Amino acid sequence: MKLYSYWRSTAAYRVRIALNIKQIEYDYKAIHLVKNGGQHLQEDYKSLNPQSLVPTLETDDGQVITQSLAIIDYLEAISTKNSLYSDNQITNAQIKAMALSVACDIHPLNNLRVLKYLKGQDWQQAQIDQWYRHWIDQGFSAIEQQLKQSAGTYCFGDNVTIADIFLVAQVYNANRFKVPLDDYPLIVRVNQNCLELKVFIDAIPENQVDCDL
Amino acid sequence: MKLYSYWRSTAAYRVRIALNIKQIEYDYKAIHLVKNGGQHLQEDYKSLNPQSLVPTLETDDGQVITQSLAIIDYLEAISTKNSLYSDNQITNAQIKAMALSVACDIHPLNNLRVLKYLKGQDWQQAQIDQWYRHWIDQGFSAIEQQLKQSAGTYCFGDNVTIADIFLVAQVYNANRFKVPLDDYPLIVRVNQNCLELKVFIDAIPENQVDCDL
Repeated sequence: MKLYSYWRSTAAYRVRIALNIKQIEYDYKAIHLVKNGGQHLQEDYKSLNPQSLVPTLETDDGQVITQSLAIIDYLEAISTKNSLYSDNQITNAQIKAMALSVACDIHPLNNLRVLKYLKGQDWQQAQIDQWYRHWIDQGFSAIEQQLKQSAGTYCFGDNVTIADIFLVAQVYNANRFKVPLDDYPLIVRVNQNCLELKVFIDAIPENQVDCDL
Repeated sequence: MKLYSYWRSTAAYRVRIALNIKQIEYDYKAIHLVKNGGQHLQEDYKSLNPQSLVPTLETDDGQVITQSLAIIDYLEAISTKNSLYSDNQITNAQIKAMALSVACDIHPLNNLRVLKYLKGQDWQQAQIDQWYRHWIDQGFSAIEQQLKQSAGTYCFGDNVTIADIFLVAQVYNANRFKVPLDDYPLIVRVNQNCLELKVFIDAIPENQVDCDL
């Protein structure tokens, strides 16, 4: 399989973790979101992913899947190894809801294209930082609350699930924007526990071949 | 089951359609997002849904599920009747990706809490309308492109899937904000075809008991 990824993309980070957990080997195709005005906006990538977003997964027989959660659920469907869900349907739904609370209600408000739009409206950096923090705080407060019921070593008991994958990628992003996380001790603990695992470490943005820090 | 819903909520609209397609009866619990500063922000609702968003599903034995896609996937998992997916895993992933492109990359940028935030930053209505249209256009352009490959009567061939559910709810919202849809003939066609079905008609916001237009 090929994964079209950018080292710093939160959504691509999620898929890298899932591929590692599932022990699926893949070719890493770097799509630089900044260089040359953004390689994701060029026609050849756009023909693969009309949304011009990363990640995109291309299967061995050339089928294309976009959207990180759709990709991860596909990996889960084709490989039962190291399941990212639970045997219980209610727990499953709650795991998915936590992942979606990141994927829908935090990340899309804070990603590159939105922050660019706001800059284009003459927002100053302080105003953008406040916007960024606001949506992190809204989302993380609710997740912290839910973790009081569900957390063990990870978000849901002692097995890694997609909730952990989405949370760890978002915490990375929050740290990048220097958002204080003191009010979220359970999120911080789960994040630390995940980042002791090789499957998470290998997926960290700074450990990707295209990291150009 | 109980569905905590608001007639005009796009995310609740999706779940209402899914419940109708699955022929699952439910109690409608209205949560007014505007009256009294918003019933979703009150403590009793917040204890059910820490994100203070609608919809929330409560099962017969009191289990709680949030996030429309998690709820719909749960309904799919417990009832094989009128499946909202395909038998093919790649098609499934592409169906889910289209739903997610609405759920993640259009709706969260345009919902009530975000528009309120922007008003709080002294944005004028024209500036807010422009923001709204921008994200609709970004998302709908990509969906229109994908529909050229996949559409039949509905988004993916001639069976209704979750892609249709998410699309119809978003078109409703776009119409409410008077976004011109001339550039999206396939989206318009699919939307019209869906809205000929009773399961969609019964879920329309104006047909809900709490509609207070």
